[in-house]
Amino acid sequence: MLFRQLFDHESSTYTYLIADSTLKQALLVDPVLEQVERDRQLLQELGLTLKYCLETHIHADHITGTGKLREITGCLGIVPENAQISCADRKIKDREILTLGEVTVEAIATPGHTDSHNAYLINKTHLLTGDALFIRGCGRTDFQSGDAGRLYDSVTQKLFTLPDETLVYPGHEYRGHSVSTIGEEKQHNPRFLGRNRTDFITFMNNLNLPNPKKMMEAVPANQMCGKVKY
Amino acid sequence: MLFRQLFDHESSTYTYLIADSTLKQALLVDPVLEQVERDRQLLQELGLTLKYCLETHIHADHITGTGKLREITGCLGIVPENAQISCADRKIKDREILTLGEVTVEAIATPGHTDSHNAYLINKTHLLTGDALFIRGCGRTDFQSGDAGRLYDSVTQKLFTLPDETLVYPGHEYRGHSVSTIGEEKQHNPRFLGRNRTDFITFMNNLNLPNPKKMMEAVPANQMCGKVKY
Repeated sequence: MLFRQLFDHESSTYTYLIADSTLKQALLVDPVLEQVERDRQLLQELGLTLKYCLETHIHADHITGTGKLREITGCLGIVPENAQISCADRKIKDREILTLGEVTVEAIATPGHTDSHNAYLINKTHLLTGDALFIRGCGRTDFQSGDAGRLYDSVTQKLFTLPDETLVYPGHEYRGHSVSTIGEEKQHNPRFLGRNRTDFITFMNNLNLPNPKKMMEAVPANQMCGKVKY
Repeated sequence: MLFRQLFDHESSTYTYLIADSTLKQALLVDPVLEQVERDRQLLQELGLTLKYCLETHIHADHITGTGKLREITGCLGIVPENAQISCADRKIKDREILTLGEVTVEAIATPGHTDSHNAYLINKTHLLTGDALFIRGCGRTDFQSGDAGRLYDSVTQKLFTLPDETLVYPGHEYRGHSVSTIGEEKQHNPRFLGRNRTDFITFMNNLNLPNPKKMMEAVPANQMCGKVKY
């Protein structure tokens, strides 16, 4: 398996490039519109054919690169089962497995940050947690039908029950970390450590965060598979 | 081996945390002063004792975290053999190997960006290239006794002769890449591809880059092992 973590500085978003090195087929998780040319060039240099673009959820802080990549490469755009995106090529539901040669991608429905959010477990070792779980943090739950109680359940019942050595690759990072493990997050994530479900809901509902700068354009564009005038 | 890539957004610097997971002993390569608290916390959470801070070179774009980490942890500060840093605890020369349990760190003298620059090859698989080689780029050669011809020789004769599958972890990254390989850089690095030594020198000597913003404070501070008033 080829596994590459890519970063968009403006939105602090991680995009993941995953490929079967023998088949030379690839997928991207959470591509960013402004980075499509970088990603296209990397695919070309590595001799990879892009088969799928997967979203962990409908993003509010950046516009997905899926629409443009679909135009350029003919890849399929895949979104979580409950995402209200009629233009997606395919939806993927909880525990469904997508395969790409020897690479397996298991969707794990992890609602809470939004009401339609998947984490993706790659080859049972690399967990792409999207905005459900960050390194020592988690996604906010105050818009897009977010629900702190559901996020608590998703993280504690579905992600924290994976083996401790599972690698955690988040959808965003703001302090310069790149990877963690489930064991580390269970032991050190201050959002969950020592907080029961009720405490977590109270804490999350009192964060009073400003809306993401790009929210007003990003959400409607992402509901159209990233279709904007570019 | 535990291997963590850490990023400082302000200076676009990668710091590397490497540890023997059994011994629980660690080293940092190119720590950044402003990130010392993040790094200290991570070491603590992972239960690691910091033994060494290694510099690839005397940085001009950020102040090293080594001085402060040395005060806090009692680690040793290690610099390349020819670096004019009298306060360093130890110098490491070309092909010298530092060991930390089952982790081996081989210094590879790679002057050119500065006149005293080491790359570090970890366990023969992970190459920390500092500012000699970036992903699809290389460090500048127009100050601190930089020399384009020497950099060309360092990269083409010492780094590009390593096995193609060697992982390339650079000292800086500006476009959001995290890792490459020697094979990839030989094939796709536009600074070296199709350029002989003379062409490379001409190209590098005509870049006309502005000085790094922090150069006037960073270089003297780093010559004092990162000692500043903090």
